[in-house]
Amino acid sequence: MVGQKFVELLSAHPWFKITALAASERSIGKKYREAMRWMMSTPLNDEVGELTVSPCLPELPCRVVFSGLDASVAGEVEERFAQAGYYVISNSRNHRMDPDVPLLIPEVNSSHLELLKTQRFPVGKLVTNPNCSVIGLAMALKPLADRWGIEKVHVVTLQALSGAGYPGVSGFDTLDNVIPYIAGEEEKIEKEPLKILGTLIGNTIAPYSMNLSAHCNRVSVADGHMACVSLTLHQKASQSEMISAWRHFTAEPEVSHLPLAPANPLIYLDDEIYPQPKLHRHLGKGMSVSVGRLRPCSLFDWKFTLLSHNTVRGAAGCAVLNAELMLKKGII
Amino acid sequence: MVGQKFVELLSAHPWFKITALAASERSIGKKYREAMRWMMSTPLNDEVGELTVSPCLPELPCRVVFSGLDASVAGEVEERFAQAGYYVISNSRNHRMDPDVPLLIPEVNSSHLELLKTQRFPVGKLVTNPNCSVIGLAMALKPLADRWGIEKVHVVTLQALSGAGYPGVSGFDTLDNVIPYIAGEEEKIEKEPLKILGTLIGNTIAPYSMNLSAHCNRVSVADGHMACVSLTLHQKASQSEMISAWRHFTAEPEVSHLPLAPANPLIYLDDEIYPQPKLHRHLGKGMSVSVGRLRPCSLFDWKFTLLSHNTVRGAAGCAVLNAELMLKKGII
Amino acid sequence: MVGQKFVELLSAHPWFKITALAASERSIGKKYREAMRWMMSTPLNDEVGELTVSPCLPELPCRVVFSGLDASVAGEVEERFAQAGYYVISNSRNHRMDPDVPLLIPEVNSSHLELLKTQRFPVGKLVTNPNCSVIGLAMALKPLADRWGIEKVHVVTLQALSGAGYPGVSGFDTLDNVIPYIAGEEEKIEKEPLKILGTLIGNTIAPYSMNLSAHCNRVSVADGHMACVSLTLHQKASQSEMISAWRHFTAEPEVSHLPLAPANPLIYLDDEIYPQPKLHRHLGKGMSVSVGRLRPCSLFDWKFTLLSHNTVRGAAGCAVLNAELMLKKGII
Amino acid sequence: MVGQKFVELLSAHPWFKITALAASERSIGKKYREAMRWMMSTPLNDEVGELTVSPCLPELPCRVVFSGLDASVAGEVEERFAQAGYYVISNSRNHRMDPDVPLLIPEVNSSHLELLKTQRFPVGKLVTNPNCSVIGLAMALKPLADRWGIEKVHVVTLQALSGAGYPGVSGFDTLDNVIPYIAGEEEKIEKEPLKILGTLIGNTIAPYSMNLSAHCNRVSVADGHMACVSLTLHQKASQSEMISAWRHFTAEPEVSHLPLAPANPLIYLDDEIYPQPKLHRHLGKGMSVSVGRLRPCSLFDWKFTLLSHNTVRGAAGCAVLNAELMLKKGII
Repeated sequence: MVGQKFVELLSAHPWFKITALAASERSIGKKYREAMRWMMSTPLNDEVGELTVSPCLPELPCRVVFSGLDASVAGEVEERFAQAGYYVISNSRNHRMDPDVPLLIPEVNSSHLELLKTQRFPVGKLVTNPNCSVIGLAMALKPLADRWGIEKVHVVTLQALSGAGYPGVSGFDTLDNVIPYIAGEEEKIEKEPLKILGTLIGNTIAPYSMNLSAHCNRVSVADGHMACVSLTLHQKASQSEMISAWRHFTAEPEVSHLPLAPANPLIYLDDEIYPQPKLHRHLGKGMSVSVGRLRPCSLFDWKFTLLSHNTVRGAAGCAVLNAELMLKKGII
Repeated sequence: MVGQKFVELLSAHPWFKITALAASERSIGKKYREAMRWMMSTPLNDEVGELTVSPCLPELPCRVVFSGLDASVAGEVEERFAQAGYYVISNSRNHRMDPDVPLLIPEVNSSHLELLKTQRFPVGKLVTNPNCSVIGLAMALKPLADRWGIEKVHVVTLQALSGAGYPGVSGFDTLDNVIPYIAGEEEKIEKEPLKILGTLIGNTIAPYSMNLSAHCNRVSVADGHMACVSLTLHQKASQSEMISAWRHFTAEPEVSHLPLAPANPLIYLDDEIYPQPKLHRHLGKGMSVSVGRLRPCSLFDWKFTLLSHNTVRGAAGCAVLNAELMLKKGII
Repeated sequence: MVGQKFVELLSAHPWFKITALAASERSIGKKYREAMRWMMSTPLNDEVGELTVSPCLPELPCRVVFSGLDASVAGEVEERFAQAGYYVISNSRNHRMDPDVPLLIPEVNSSHLELLKTQRFPVGKLVTNPNCSVIGLAMALKPLADRWGIEKVHVVTLQALSGAGYPGVSGFDTLDNVIPYIAGEEEKIEKEPLKILGTLIGNTIAPYSMNLSAHCNRVSVADGHMACVSLTLHQKASQSEMISAWRHFTAEPEVSHLPLAPANPLIYLDDEIYPQPKLHRHLGKGMSVSVGRLRPCSLFDWKFTLLSHNTVRGAAGCAVLNAELMLKKGII
Repeated sequence: MVGQKFVELLSAHPWFKITALAASERSIGKKYREAMRWMMSTPLNDEVGELTVSPCLPELPCRVVFSGLDASVAGEVEERFAQAGYYVISNSRNHRMDPDVPLLIPEVNSSHLELLKTQRFPVGKLVTNPNCSVIGLAMALKPLADRWGIEKVHVVTLQALSGAGYPGVSGFDTLDNVIPYIAGEEEKIEKEPLKILGTLIGNTIAPYSMNLSAHCNRVSVADGHMACVSLTLHQKASQSEMISAWRHFTAEPEVSHLPLAPANPLIYLDDEIYPQPKLHRHLGKGMSVSVGRLRPCSLFDWKFTLLSHNTVRGAAGCAVLNAELMLKKGII
């Protein structure tokens, strides 16, 4: 799913052009259009469909490599490409917590790109984006952390089917059902935000200091991860101040003018029955994060609901935005 | 939905017999089978289908009245029946928090029936069962509260469509979607457990002292409310002790031999992907509560997942069990 | 659903501008944004959201009226507007079979606009589009009828939830279910295509002579009506000729350059598992009809599968295209 | 899915006892409860869960073998068991059309068991049940064929997810979608009914003479295959006669008293919105077939809607009933 979303976004991109596609053994040598079933709702670009799938070897005719590889192989393959001088923009989890690898959300921590200056690779670079559930969360937390400081965060997710890849979960299991477990997901949600919100000190990220706890569920939704968030801030905030902080949150100009950057990274919706995956996942072409139902919590300070499109904002879209920023900054 | 579930359970009941059915204006005078569309998966009992629907006036040929009335009318109607000498077993929210009305789950607080001795009605009695999301929660909390004491509980629910009644939520809204709000539900979850777990002192219930916070969501599941629960206990418990407390939890014998009482009120499932609504809502004929995924929480002591069938255990089934207990105890 | 789709399409339209919105009693006097819940996946246009809803009286500040009224009131209201000199573009069923009213699909029967020359109204005009299931069917039949003639057509539909309006069908009924009946739908499918494919003779449409039979089902799909079609032609066709007839089908230039006209009115998909509502309803911005699985039938000549977006191609989109054509032709 | 349904039905069976379970390489040597995930809504029988899975070799400690094997291996394995003297009751498609193998539905063609007298195996026997979509269809056709004769039948199916096995179809593909193709299914529907309704002449079945055509679709329903059927009879029937023929259809007494035989093999439902998978698949404990909406057809004589539970009536339940009949008749 993420691979196809990459192809969809890059096929129509003003700055990037798809010159090669690489995949596993099973697909090598086939035309892309025959190597997979196209699942996106916009038609497959004709030229891209005609590309022949190459092996995942650092001999591809391109400079930037977008990786949506399975974690079982991504670690080594991405390393090899970066070593060979490619700019690797990865959506895989393998290198996210490496000390010299930025875990990047352009609107949140573009300064972390500084890590690249001392990154282990002689020429190439490796940049990752966070887990699909973490990106929306980190974006919603960012303005709160900046202004009031965050002490602790409790998250219960209701995650979409596309997050499980394809074919992913059985249709028999997902119809009329909820699956209360997603392997490895809670650990990522409890760990990645600390690095994302962390501070660059010298060549390192000092992690943000807060406590997180997560429950993850798979629900019968095609796209759009929701989260019920409860949190405690360090300093006292009012409801209107927090909503205003979200509504006025903008990235620095270098980011906010990038092709895929949404006009409003965070959209607060007033109606108490919002956000809903079906209605709001497409806001900002899938790059905006929706927030709603901010209200006091009797155990934490506040509780609210969060929604982001998991394959766009939470995966391929964030990765492409990362690459756009690197190009803009002259890193690529 | 709850009304039909009452009819389904009572049609096949060894102790009770449906002698009258009452409903709103729209249905009065019609045969029951023509007054509604039967939605249960067992066929409608023939005799019951032939009963003529009466108005909700205290002139019904019966002694026990099961009420699944809408909250907009239940308050007054139930009061009138109790006043007239009927035993009113209500699933509606109106009288749940009345000081002289038991908020009853037989396995949890049968002693609260003592309230009836001094209840305001000269002859009749009024007993309520808790909200559909609260019953499963209170049952899972009961053995923990008894042994270790509970300080605070954070609950995020993923509630089934049947909980919204019929026609309830639009199919267009529920397909490929989650609705992050259920009117009035969070308030009930934060309030009712305190009374249920409270202690009878003289003629009153002293509420249990703990803090609760709830987020409620409607998901695309037909039956079966799930909850992601995080909690802190007063005393230190181990994971195995807690699982054992759930597995060994039984009602007092007077309750556990009632026709609708499940052999195991609480079932702990070891597989980390359980409980799931589709697979476990029918356990104990819909009267058992399933628990799974108990694990440490970095913000509370523990977190786990909970499931109960909302129209059986969480509504009509609990109400009928309440009536069974009253009959067994000679109250009816 | 259709009303909102009208607003979505017209808000972004190059030729039309929404100057007034009218609805039933319940909404009059409210701002549009407060009179309904916006269900579309693109945000509501700000200016349109601020318009105050007027009563359905022929005193609206506009020349063209798009009607998605309920059939219970559409008949009289539309008549009154046309009588008062408005150009009424209706999606309602009431006047579809009136002898002097075009039942219009621009790509199929634009010549039927001739009926307007002798239409009963002194100044205003009334044009309708067919039923949401009929439009896609009539479009797929058109090139076959033109080249080989059609003798009989058997249609089984699998229709989307949005076709039932809002709130439409209960979520409890549609989850894990199929409803094998849609009131009045089979009759429309058996009748409307005869007029659409009919021939203008003088001031009348001589209906096309063929036999149709339909079964209609409601399935758990948000948007996109499918149909399994079996048909017998008058003359012998080959599979490749029929596919070619669909692929080369184009409207006359006057139509095919209209803003909402799709580049390809009919798209034949080779993969035997296509068309699918989720993947193909958006083709041509929802205005293309997808066809697939053409194969011989042992009872009829041929069988195939058909898909069209029911609220775009099958309703609001067709109506707007009708209005575009009338403007282009100088009728409006 | 079918394998587990076999285990569920046989665990509670009054005549049969599960003494051995055999499966593919992957499961051999494991306890059954660990070899699969139990998906049924009744709990797995404890004793059966403890059985160790054996290889599919004709050395099992039992006399009757129920086979739900994949068609890729069933042909040879079943043959080998029958050759070795086992009574093989198969749900697989491989031997269904073998001239000396009954394609058995006890209520429809119990006389076909005569084929066993001259079946190729020295001691063992091999009996099959039809495809899951065919069983319900053949049962509904049977009384019509007997009384009026059937000339031709057009069938469009809306089939449930469990029919695709497990994991079967991807949840992403089935949510908000219809898949208009099921490999090999249309061929079976067009062929198997002719053998089932055929006449035993000597040692052979002379196939019933009629024409069938099928379109098959996969819809988002867990269990319960629906079909929209249009048919032409040889002789004139009235609507009430046909409904009466269905309602009075019973198997011969030898069949109708079998443990799994439903009291009513065919149930005609008067409400025009019935049958529905969710409401009627469980009728007769999943062994009854529901029919509704009989009405005249302008292309055929009649059209109606049909529903049967695909893993019970359409697979494991029919197979067990076949075995019951063979035991009753002294064949086993």
